[in-house]
Amino acid sequence: MTTRIEQDLLGEMALDNNAWYGIQTQRALDNFAISGTRIGEFPDLVTALAMVKAAAADANLRVGYLTKDKADAIKAASQEIIEGKYHEQFVVDVIQGGAGTSTNMNANEVIANLALAKLGHEKGAYHLLHPNDDVNRCQSTNDAYPTAARIAIQLSGDKLITAITGLKQAFEAKADAFFDVIKMGRTQLQDAVPMSLGQEFMAFAINLDDEIARIRQANTLLCHVNLGGTAIGTGINSHSDYAQAAIDSLARLANKPLVQARNLIAATSDMGDFVYYSGVLKRLAVKLGKISNDLRLLSSGPRTGLGEITLPAMQPGSSIMPGKINPVIPEAVNQSAYQVIANDLAVTLAAEAGQLQLNAMEPLIIYNILNSMKILVSSCDMLASRCVRGITANRSRCRQLVTDSIGTITALVPEIGYGNASAIAKQAMAENKSVVELVLHCGLLSQERLEALLDPASMLQVATSPR
Amino acid sequence: MTTRIEQDLLGEMALDNNAWYGIQTQRALDNFAISGTRIGEFPDLVTALAMVKAAAADANLRVGYLTKDKADAIKAASQEIIEGKYHEQFVVDVIQGGAGTSTNMNANEVIANLALAKLGHEKGAYHLLHPNDDVNRCQSTNDAYPTAARIAIQLSGDKLITAITGLKQAFEAKADAFFDVIKMGRTQLQDAVPMSLGQEFMAFAINLDDEIARIRQANTLLCHVNLGGTAIGTGINSHSDYAQAAIDSLARLANKPLVQARNLIAATSDMGDFVYYSGVLKRLAVKLGKISNDLRLLSSGPRTGLGEITLPAMQPGSSIMPGKINPVIPEAVNQSAYQVIANDLAVTLAAEAGQLQLNAMEPLIIYNILNSMKILVSSCDMLASRCVRGITANRSRCRQLVTDSIGTITALVPEIGYGNASAIAKQAMAENKSVVELVLHCGLLSQERLEALLDPASMLQVATSPR
Amino acid sequence: MTTRIEQDLLGEMALDNNAWYGIQTQRALDNFAISGTRIGEFPDLVTALAMVKAAAADANLRVGYLTKDKADAIKAASQEIIEGKYHEQFVVDVIQGGAGTSTNMNANEVIANLALAKLGHEKGAYHLLHPNDDVNRCQSTNDAYPTAARIAIQLSGDKLITAITGLKQAFEAKADAFFDVIKMGRTQLQDAVPMSLGQEFMAFAINLDDEIARIRQANTLLCHVNLGGTAIGTGINSHSDYAQAAIDSLARLANKPLVQARNLIAATSDMGDFVYYSGVLKRLAVKLGKISNDLRLLSSGPRTGLGEITLPAMQPGSSIMPGKINPVIPEAVNQSAYQVIANDLAVTLAAEAGQLQLNAMEPLIIYNILNSMKILVSSCDMLASRCVRGITANRSRCRQLVTDSIGTITALVPEIGYGNASAIAKQAMAENKSVVELVLHCGLLSQERLEALLDPASMLQVATSPR
Amino acid sequence: MTTRIEQDLLGEMALDNNAWYGIQTQRALDNFAISGTRIGEFPDLVTALAMVKAAAADANLRVGYLTKDKADAIKAASQEIIEGKYHEQFVVDVIQGGAGTSTNMNANEVIANLALAKLGHEKGAYHLLHPNDDVNRCQSTNDAYPTAARIAIQLSGDKLITAITGLKQAFEAKADAFFDVIKMGRTQLQDAVPMSLGQEFMAFAINLDDEIARIRQANTLLCHVNLGGTAIGTGINSHSDYAQAAIDSLARLANKPLVQARNLIAATSDMGDFVYYSGVLKRLAVKLGKISNDLRLLSSGPRTGLGEITLPAMQPGSSIMPGKINPVIPEAVNQSAYQVIANDLAVTLAAEAGQLQLNAMEPLIIYNILNSMKILVSSCDMLASRCVRGITANRSRCRQLVTDSIGTITALVPEIGYGNASAIAKQAMAENKSVVELVLHCGLLSQERLEALLDPASMLQVATSPR
Repeated sequence: MTTRIEQDLLGEMALDNNAWYGIQTQRALDNFAISGTRIGEFPDLVTALAMVKAAAADANLRVGYLTKDKADAIKAASQEIIEGKYHEQFVVDVIQGGAGTSTNMNANEVIANLALAKLGHEKGAYHLLHPNDDVNRCQSTNDAYPTAARIAIQLSGDKLITAITGLKQAFEAKADAFFDVIKMGRTQLQDAVPMSLGQEFMAFAINLDDEIARIRQANTLLCHVNLGGTAIGTGINSHSDYAQAAIDSLARLANKPLVQARNLIAATSDMGDFVYYSGVLKRLAVKLGKISNDLRLLSSGPRTGLGEITLPAMQPGSSIMPGKINPVIPEAVNQSAYQVIANDLAVTLAAEAGQLQLNAMEPLIIYNILNSMKILVSSCDMLASRCVRGITANRSRCRQLVTDSIGTITALVPEIGYGNASAIAKQAMAENKSVVELVLHCGLLSQERLEALLDPASMLQVATSPR
Repeated sequence: MTTRIEQDLLGEMALDNNAWYGIQTQRALDNFAISGTRIGEFPDLVTALAMVKAAAADANLRVGYLTKDKADAIKAASQEIIEGKYHEQFVVDVIQGGAGTSTNMNANEVIANLALAKLGHEKGAYHLLHPNDDVNRCQSTNDAYPTAARIAIQLSGDKLITAITGLKQAFEAKADAFFDVIKMGRTQLQDAVPMSLGQEFMAFAINLDDEIARIRQANTLLCHVNLGGTAIGTGINSHSDYAQAAIDSLARLANKPLVQARNLIAATSDMGDFVYYSGVLKRLAVKLGKISNDLRLLSSGPRTGLGEITLPAMQPGSSIMPGKINPVIPEAVNQSAYQVIANDLAVTLAAEAGQLQLNAMEPLIIYNILNSMKILVSSCDMLASRCVRGITANRSRCRQLVTDSIGTITALVPEIGYGNASAIAKQAMAENKSVVELVLHCGLLSQERLEALLDPASMLQVATSPR
Repeated sequence: MTTRIEQDLLGEMALDNNAWYGIQTQRALDNFAISGTRIGEFPDLVTALAMVKAAAADANLRVGYLTKDKADAIKAASQEIIEGKYHEQFVVDVIQGGAGTSTNMNANEVIANLALAKLGHEKGAYHLLHPNDDVNRCQSTNDAYPTAARIAIQLSGDKLITAITGLKQAFEAKADAFFDVIKMGRTQLQDAVPMSLGQEFMAFAINLDDEIARIRQANTLLCHVNLGGTAIGTGINSHSDYAQAAIDSLARLANKPLVQARNLIAATSDMGDFVYYSGVLKRLAVKLGKISNDLRLLSSGPRTGLGEITLPAMQPGSSIMPGKINPVIPEAVNQSAYQVIANDLAVTLAAEAGQLQLNAMEPLIIYNILNSMKILVSSCDMLASRCVRGITANRSRCRQLVTDSIGTITALVPEIGYGNASAIAKQAMAENKSVVELVLHCGLLSQERLEALLDPASMLQVATSPR
Repeated sequence: MTTRIEQDLLGEMALDNNAWYGIQTQRALDNFAISGTRIGEFPDLVTALAMVKAAAADANLRVGYLTKDKADAIKAASQEIIEGKYHEQFVVDVIQGGAGTSTNMNANEVIANLALAKLGHEKGAYHLLHPNDDVNRCQSTNDAYPTAARIAIQLSGDKLITAITGLKQAFEAKADAFFDVIKMGRTQLQDAVPMSLGQEFMAFAINLDDEIARIRQANTLLCHVNLGGTAIGTGINSHSDYAQAAIDSLARLANKPLVQARNLIAATSDMGDFVYYSGVLKRLAVKLGKISNDLRLLSSGPRTGLGEITLPAMQPGSSIMPGKINPVIPEAVNQSAYQVIANDLAVTLAAEAGQLQLNAMEPLIIYNILNSMKILVSSCDMLASRCVRGITANRSRCRQLVTDSIGTITALVPEIGYGNASAIAKQAMAENKSVVELVLHCGLLSQERLEALLDPASMLQVATSPR
């Protein structure tokens, strides 16, 4: 291994000359061997960092702080990263001290060295193009890093919307297929009133549709960036025209309607939008968890559970019990949901720990949000493709349970009153009889009227149920 | 104590005849002696329940399901509750089984008995006006209760916005007063670059302004109600014109732009908007916590801390250390914030526990949201009136710290470069010297240029900092 | 209302002369109107505070810091509080700034005024007997308050152990009653292998027995108190013999084997044992939640669920669906469990916020632990008396599900192999046939051997299952 | 790539013949692409799984269920894994459905194929030695997997104890070095009374020592294993002598005093000990967070903060502010602590989701505990070696703050009374004077008495402070 020597405020260090990153990244690698997860495992973050650096170079060129040569080299280097190259050079641990400085310097160093190469120079020749003085020009970690995070999360948000949409459509397809499967609705796990299995699945789809709207809206909050605020939001060391130029350029690169935050000092330390975003992800997780719970309940059995639906078999279910098939996909989604809820707590804790002009815990916030999004995308894809699309309805079982149930008596209340209905329900349970039998026996309703009232189609108002 | 006998599905029971509530409420009182906190302690919830009952009566009159006598009596009874009377009759524990049925029946029974009284009848004469058949007509707990909760939270939300606004204004007033107090900004608790204390306080105000926007927006989500869905959202036992009539009437009573949820089955079991709302409250709590932490840091001392500001003395600070004054108000806000964050977890856990067509844990969700809002309103009021308005700045201390600091060197980077600046900073620390002294000694800048660059006003760009 | 004037570091104030508390308590009442819950609602805390004050007076008498008259008066006043009187005088909000100073001063002031009365003096005549100089002698809030909290929690812990024991015994009684009810065990909600309902209920009992052991052990950790450390653990202002004397006296009063923490500085700021205790309560909550979930699953139906057991009817289940009975008691326990888990987060957040020599957030920690214990005691009592003791088994339903199931094939694996068994299980599902039928048809086993292997008693090894 | 065909309940599949794992593992790889983290990244888990399989083989040999050839081959294969080989073959995602079946089958398949190789057979020749019928003999995932987890956590626990011990010793060394550095103690960030920096650091050491005791004790709880319970704890399909033989053998292999859980049905579904263990890890995290907060506060500055200590410089602190050095190591520890606290929530959520005879969410529980332990080990090591050992005291600064402070007046209270002392403290603040000056001026104490009382050594009672 050939090495090169680099130097910083703390002294000199020998680096593997294959590395595109530099001395500060190397220090961070040595210092922060915590989680074993590297920032490069989150491609949207790496891409967004490169976008910020390209936009800054562009703005610095425009305000006269960078020569065209340097600016072009930085932009070209950044572009390669945006295209997915060199992500393995983003090596610092996702859990790191320094409020993201190591992540920002990892980007500055990799891009500086790539730009130097483009200009025909050696790695490490920072007197010709410097990670701080050139790549990081007019920037601080404290504005460049959260700006990159806001873009990264939006990029992941777009993918998440796609994944949720796929899952929603899978439920919609099943809602159509199960449109006419009459079944008992259950509240508090107790027999309630009839509905159709299609209605039940359409409710899942509608629930997911709401989540898409929430994420879309959360994305818009992230469009307010603090680029140009530099160290604490006062914009120290930044050219007065730089901020707007950089944000314009970044908006074009990221294809997002970015605007400058209205108060850069407030924006620099504020983690509110991240807390909010994570809260929205938690909401989605709660929803996915509830849906998975329902799928597991409805498919419980095969012979001693509810047994209304059958999930596709994805794994032999037991190392000891032959033939057992477990609802492994919803179970995995449940666990993913718990992890996302837990990650939201990490975000909350870190956000609360901000002090004065900065929040030093930003790296944990950003990691947990991006990690939750990765897990959620996987979970939605997995649930759609490996479970929902293969679900079948057990029609006769569903229908039989309606016929046997007592809950249908609810439909008679408007005509026989709550008191009479209660008495009949109680008697039906005690004597193990059917509602129809008892109502007819009491003479409370004629057979025709009774049949009309108990017609499932009327009870569940399928016709009027909106999609 | 005179008693009356009431009867329900489970049998008879003797009730204190002074009680306006009835047998089901009494059972709930006996069954759920858990937290000791009664729903009546949340006036917005009681008010909202009465609004729902009045609106339902109005709609039932219009669709012909209630006589004018009955409807008028129910509306008049509800109106008294809306005006703040009889809240002590709402006695069931906030933690209760039954998905809110006990809360709903508490409302049905109190209103039924009040209405009976208005019609000149005895309490308990339910054959003349029935809690279920009349007051609850066309409703289920499963639509009436969450609808009431959505209105209650909005009512509390309005109060919360008022409270945050007051706190924001207190910070704005201080921002104006501290406009020209030059001080060091700090990132990661380390000396960073200069700013003004006014900027610091304006950032608090701006941060709070963002919270107002979030709560306002969260309120709009709650305008989508499932009234008319009855038991599971299929609308069983409800007149086809009832839902719209009831929602229209309720919108007028609550003065909120209510609309029917687009899919009532989805809406019946969905706790998403509550999770979301709680997440927004958590975001506010995190912000208040961060602000309180900052106030405690900035006022630390009086002689061995940062000592940049002085909080008003509200309590003798110690039972043993004379003269000690502690930042008791921010400390109380910090704890309130933790409680709100914790309550958000209770909401999350309860929301995740929904099963099939209902979430049986709604009472815990609603209690925790309303309790968080109560705590947040108190905290904002307390922080504004008992702390922020009385804060004074220690101007000379603030200024001295700027003069002593090394962080001002950042302003020289554009002219002397990051490398030179780092070296001087290092030397200043090592030799306990001032930056100005060393820069002049090195001859890197003329005295005039140095003074211009280190002029605080230029460093902190006061002029351009937007409110 | 007659008033008296009191004075403290911050000035004078008029107090209602009926109040036994004094000026600092009054300030706290005014300052902290946050949660509406007063410390007096937690009798064990008030009792423990009085015990600490009595023990301190006793020790101060012994070291010569208090006259016998004063010491006796303070002890007599404290004794009345220990006996349950004057708890309504403990009025400060459970959420308060000042690290418990207001709670400690509430105790000091009430006891001083009661002691003054015993000595024949007026309330407020603090020059004769002073809340700080006499009642609080040799103490700081920072040692007296957490010491009281450690005793209060142990007192509540004893009650909690009693409550869990009652619940455990209720499950044991049912385990005996259901000893021979053969049913299918379920893993992952899928049919597994047979067991008895008695085994299932005994598992609940055993689970609870483990919790008792954990709480007992957690109580022992709380016996290490920092009394004598005063302000920061250096013992400033305390007589050198005081600490041991006070702890000995307190140990007798509280009937707990108290010892001094080995390092008082470490002990003063350390919230570790509280975090631990809360974690143990959370473990109990998780257990109760799981048990409640199971009870709700097993009693789901009555006709479209598992229906293996029936819970006693405690509330009419629905305002719209006649005859519906919901599992309201377990639902309330579930919600209680969620609240306890959430409270544990509040404890965690507050504990993490300790700074340097103290944790200012102790009041929130103590409140949340005591509140969780109150909720848990209520929940265990409620679950035992209003649910478990009335549970009945649906024997024929349980037996039928075993007969119908496929899971019994597991018992054949040792003789026919996992592969054959899997194939038969698959075929049974596909063709809706019984396992017995298919095994016999394949000729894999003789009818006798098959019957022996499928004998439920052998499958579930009832005889060897330990209690 | 050469392939081989394997078959299971769900059908055939082609596998890369280089893979030592088999078809069920491959299905899990395909199904669960969620977190990207593989179980093989947790070596203690893989080791523990192999120990369980070796112990089971040993027991099966003894009870006559395996031939010596097979048992020896299985044990030899397991031994290689215990020695650290083939961990890369443990490929399933840490988030997985199936209650750990995929993890268990991953172990069964790898070991079966390794054992087959030792016997001279091809991979996949399961008719000769079968993953289920032989390697998994007498086991279910439901006993083998949690048993392995209990051992894995103990193995990690041993490492964690070593790491905490190292950190504790680093603090002890500094406590010795800073023994005589007099400084002001602070409560609620306000000046309190004097202490030594050595006392402050010794408190950190003592705090950590308590954590070691807790982890040690938590390890003992994990010694109760459910091996032998098979599917639901009834021990179906297990030889009656197997359980004890397997546990004995496993105890020898793991060198842990394992015993059988007293009730296997209770033990199979119970996650209590995991919740407890995670709670203990959370307690440690809270402690580390508090210590890191303190280190950051004490080292704040260099010129505008407390500045009592200096942390070693590990990273250039800013991409824009030259010379800035941030407390990056404590910041990383803070974030690690937050992650551990969040992971504890994931454990709690998953534990609460157990249903009937099993908890399907075990994989998430085990992952989060092991991940927290990994992070905690790294954090303790990092904090000790990269921060604490290099901390230096700023002695003159510490001393000056004592001299300037008002808090020393507390030492005079026993002689001049709380009232007088309060008045002087108030005057000192108002007039910016020193306590000594004012006390002398008032003539309350002679100069000698004053000096004796204010002698720091007596105030902080260094001599009596136990280690």
